[in-house]
Amino acid sequence: MTDRPLNLLAGLPPPGTPDEEIRTLLARPGLRIERIVSTGQASPPGFWYDQPQDEWVLVLAGAARLRLDGEPADRVLGPGDHLLIPAHRRHRVAWTSPEAPTVWLAVHLGPDQASTVAVSPS
Amino acid sequence: MTDRPLNLLAGLPPPGTPDEEIRTLLARPGLRIERIVSTGQASPPGFWYDQPQDEWVLVLAGAARLRLDGEPADRVLGPGDHLLIPAHRRHRVAWTSPEAPTVWLAVHLGPDQASTVAVSPS
Repeated sequence: MTDRPLNLLAGLPPPGTPDEEIRTLLARPGLRIERIVSTGQASPPGFWYDQPQDEWVLVLAGAARLRLDGEPADRVLGPGDHLLIPAHRRHRVAWTSPEAPTVWLAVHLGPDQASTVAVSPS
Repeated sequence: MTDRPLNLLAGLPPPGTPDEEIRTLLARPGLRIERIVSTGQASPPGFWYDQPQDEWVLVLAGAARLRLDGEPADRVLGPGDHLLIPAHRRHRVAWTSPEAPTVWLAVHLGPDQASTVAVSPS
């Protein structure tokens, strides 16, 4: 029970919190693991992430829709869903549930990860 | 919906399956992400893992008890619980639930990760 880290499904911000909450869980050269909690945010219309590094994401709780540039529809994501977003694969968060927090695990890969930028309220 | 990867909470082996199931989700130089599903297994009495690399683990579902060498009690782990097991920190899986599958996400860090060795039935 010593030095027990925060449970990733606990201490979540309530629905309606204006900004996403981003917490670094582990940072190493070439790797950063984050918990991201969305509370209804989405990427602004027309905004696309274009990241210099690969990112592997896993939804732990909640519900989200992610659009990858070039795909005909959003990916509908729930707990247990994961995907690799290759570097420079443009993507946007189309929607996150306003009802309950959406908890993401994000693993940023590569030599020089930029920090995740919290998306604005939709 | 293209190339959608397996949901990590789906397709689980049933309770009583003799061996742990280990699936590599992502492998890169210096990194390997695995899903491990335990169905009641535990480390044999007196057995300790002693790994040359750091490992970060997160429980996604189920229930487990992990003992780190030198700690006075098992760590009781459930969904959302995570910890870093530093290289050469001896540890053993004291128990996993026989009732429902325990799903672990394991991130192996470092230049030369050995594959996870499935533990034997308890």
